[in-house]
Amino acid sequence: MDFGVVVIVGTGLIGGSIGLGLKKRGLATTIIGIGHRKSSINKALKIKAIDEGFLGVEAVVKQADIIILATSVSLIPDYAKKIIPLMKKSAILTDVGSTKDYIVSQVNSEIESTCGGEKPTFIGAHPIAGSEQRGIDFARSDLFEGSVCVLTPTILNSKKCITTLSNLWKALGAKISIMTPSKHDEILALVSHLPHFVASSLAGVIDEKYWKFAASGLRDTTRIASGDPELWLSIGTQNKHKLIEVLRCFSEEVERTINDLEQGNDKKLLGRLKKAKTVRDKKKWK
Amino acid sequence: MDFGVVVIVGTGLIGGSIGLGLKKRGLATTIIGIGHRKSSINKALKIKAIDEGFLGVEAVVKQADIIILATSVSLIPDYAKKIIPLMKKSAILTDVGSTKDYIVSQVNSEIESTCGGEKPTFIGAHPIAGSEQRGIDFARSDLFEGSVCVLTPTILNSKKCITTLSNLWKALGAKISIMTPSKHDEILALVSHLPHFVASSLAGVIDEKYWKFAASGLRDTTRIASGDPELWLSIGTQNKHKLIEVLRCFSEEVERTINDLEQGNDKKLLGRLKKAKTVRDKKKWK
Repeated sequence: MDFGVVVIVGTGLIGGSIGLGLKKRGLATTIIGIGHRKSSINKALKIKAIDEGFLGVEAVVKQADIIILATSVSLIPDYAKKIIPLMKKSAILTDVGSTKDYIVSQVNSEIESTCGGEKPTFIGAHPIAGSEQRGIDFARSDLFEGSVCVLTPTILNSKKCITTLSNLWKALGAKISIMTPSKHDEILALVSHLPHFVASSLAGVIDEKYWKFAASGLRDTTRIASGDPELWLSIGTQNKHKLIEVLRCFSEEVERTINDLEQGNDKKLLGRLKKAKTVRDKKKWK
Repeated sequence: MDFGVVVIVGTGLIGGSIGLGLKKRGLATTIIGIGHRKSSINKALKIKAIDEGFLGVEAVVKQADIIILATSVSLIPDYAKKIIPLMKKSAILTDVGSTKDYIVSQVNSEIESTCGGEKPTFIGAHPIAGSEQRGIDFARSDLFEGSVCVLTPTILNSKKCITTLSNLWKALGAKISIMTPSKHDEILALVSHLPHFVASSLAGVIDEKYWKFAASGLRDTTRIASGDPELWLSIGTQNKHKLIEVLRCFSEEVERTINDLEQGNDKKLLGRLKKAKTVRDKKKWK
């Protein structure tokens, strides 16, 4: 397999790991990295995650067969806007953002409103390969191995392009899951965005002077609260409606716990603790 | 230092680690372990966490200089009831339970109602040295090194006994923090019991079929939800009033997040995410 000229916009943990993974497996003719800091481009070049690196995307878009937007979710629509008029009609534009409905509709609207005739392709993607670390320093060629990559194509996409993108992620070791952008956001609201805002709320109510009494329980439940606030604000607001829904559902569960404690309903409390343990213990964590 | 004959009731992770720590440092004449399963006593003997092991506590109490109740919190008051009439007047009875107000008042009531003349000593203690693992297999002589051990003496305790117990925990590597049982429960409600019930509520609202899309964020925020449901029911109900209070406080924080998302108040959302990150990042985790 050769995916041709691959442009990766954003040479951080995810972008860098895509580059390393493609290079290691010989899957691209050329990998071009786009960053907004010279230092991260240089690091990406040094570890051979990319073959060439630039600060601006415009000059290189024309050559690209696949363009992967691996920036913070807040920057994806703007980058897409710049790229769409310049890309080859046969090329595929894709992303790795943690939200899909907002991004896919923004980018597809842009395509609809600015492109006549044969339209360029955008397919939303989200490799679910988390790490608490960020930046090119933590990039690894095997980051996606055994992980799930969600693709959220729409009726605008050809079967051929969907297959190409699936093959790329499969080649990087991911299992493909195809669903609508809206279904993706519903699931990720539960398994990723909710935990983040819960962890942050938890850390937020604990007075600074009491943290010295905390052990590994609080350390782990709040770990993700140390994530980048701006990034998580963007994710939360882009997936606002679904996040509100799951926060309400969670809040009702907390209320039930409070009520059962007040009423001394040990049987219900125990049932809830057991149910949570059972569902969590079933998952095989990496 | 020699703490004489030390009886450890409960040869699990904490009891076993106390035994190993005392033995390694030569701090006791004899360490006697009490378990309710022959197998865990045998394991404790095998790894030399104890010198002698028995199934019942009654026969050995008379010889003890220090008796440490290292069982599940739900069993501590009943064990104390059995031990109090049999222990030497000069001996110290203590525990390692995660709640203090309920235990200290139960045990002291027992002492008040059953003992005339010189009364035996009970001092509540809580070494905050968590591990997701349980049982003697995970016991380590250095488990308490660098950790905090809270002591919750009352006016019934002599300065001499408080000093002896402090010295024991210092010798095991812990830093001592002395406070009232009620203050202990207020702090632990926040830094330990709240995270547990939050993690459990979070795991409880996520449908089984969606866990395959979860990454390390959900893994860590819900890790403690895999803890023993019966143990956590006991902790939650013993510290019920303070737990309800902090759950309410947390629930209000979640409500504020929902409101800010609904109203598009990005500034407040960002402020809250930043505050949570700042307070968490200040703590140096082990």
